[in-house]
Amino acid sequence: MKPHEIEQKSFAIIDEEAGDHGYPADHWPIVRRMIHTTADFEYIQDTRIHPEAVTAGIGAIRSGSAIFTDTNMARVGIRQNQLEPFGGQVHCLMADERIARLAADKGITRAKAAVDAVADQLDNGIYVVGNAPTALLRLIELIRQGRTRPALVVGLPVGFVNAAESKAELLHLDTPYITNVGRKGGSNVAAAVVNALIVQARSDG
Amino acid sequence: MKPHEIEQKSFAIIDEEAGDHGYPADHWPIVRRMIHTTADFEYIQDTRIHPEAVTAGIGAIRSGSAIFTDTNMARVGIRQNQLEPFGGQVHCLMADERIARLAADKGITRAKAAVDAVADQLDNGIYVVGNAPTALLRLIELIRQGRTRPALVVGLPVGFVNAAESKAELLHLDTPYITNVGRKGGSNVAAAVVNALIVQARSDG
Repeated sequence: MKPHEIEQKSFAIIDEEAGDHGYPADHWPIVRRMIHTTADFEYIQDTRIHPEAVTAGIGAIRSGSAIFTDTNMARVGIRQNQLEPFGGQVHCLMADERIARLAADKGITRAKAAVDAVADQLDNGIYVVGNAPTALLRLIELIRQGRTRPALVVGLPVGFVNAAESKAELLHLDTPYITNVGRKGGSNVAAAVVNALIVQARSDG
Repeated sequence: MKPHEIEQKSFAIIDEEAGDHGYPADHWPIVRRMIHTTADFEYIQDTRIHPEAVTAGIGAIRSGSAIFTDTNMARVGIRQNQLEPFGGQVHCLMADERIARLAADKGITRAKAAVDAVADQLDNGIYVVGNAPTALLRLIELIRQGRTRPALVVGLPVGFVNAAESKAELLHLDTPYITNVGRKGGSNVAAAVVNALIVQARSDG
């Protein structure tokens, strides 16, 4: 089997085992790809998708808006080559020297400093958090202050310290989000969400 | 809290919730980091570590042997900067033009072609599979034929088509392995395993 055939067969298995999951037709490809990446069906129960998230995400991708992420794993996991027809690029500033200096000067995490550094470049863009609750909490703070206006926040930090809490905060925003409840998540899951949106951006309409 | 403090607090939470997990002292840091990366405690039940895997992995890292992986996500997830004192490097050939041609010529996956391409450079190295069962199955075949002799195989492909089956095959090898039973796994989990070994290589003895 070729990779594309393996993917199709995997999706068919997930569809069958998921049964009557209750997701609308434009949300299920996202959740299905989260399961495909993790083999974890808990994402059926735990995922939360803002009603305007898919439209906003597809719109941002098609307009070639920037995608920022808090991990290089998510950056390389997002299918950059499939973004190229739209002109979009994926950026991660975590290994950037200036961010390291900014974080050290302010006594904050690099993930948080990276959010500050791109806040004014984020209009109509997508911010993807796969690791750091500090990044997501800072992003939420800046959105509430009206200092940044992303089209979509993919908020999927994983872990035991503030991950669940940061994602619970995200649910209170009017800004479109794709997130989950609880501790699970990660760069692989966050990249899978963006890749699902890219597939929809390329195939719809 | 600083990132290192967040990690320590996370490990303490995992220790407490895991309770009496039954892993020996040199295996638990590996399983704990798999849980840290996924927030998924199923890895306590599902992980399988060959009795010589930790010694072999630490030895390979300390001797500066090459680490090969089937995904760029695992490559960037492995802490390359912490390998540098030992001289080791992490390689992923999936985006290599020659591998793409080799795969097309032979009608095989790039993941499988990448295993073939490095088989004779793998002595005392580590092969890390985070995605492709075809890579793991080919690696097992070459090991059985005596055509490659890695120090350690980290076999953690995720998914619904042949992932569980390929990992079940790995359990029959004499070659040291770190793997799990079932469908779960992924580049993030595979990178976490290598990072746990790097931490041990830097701290022990």
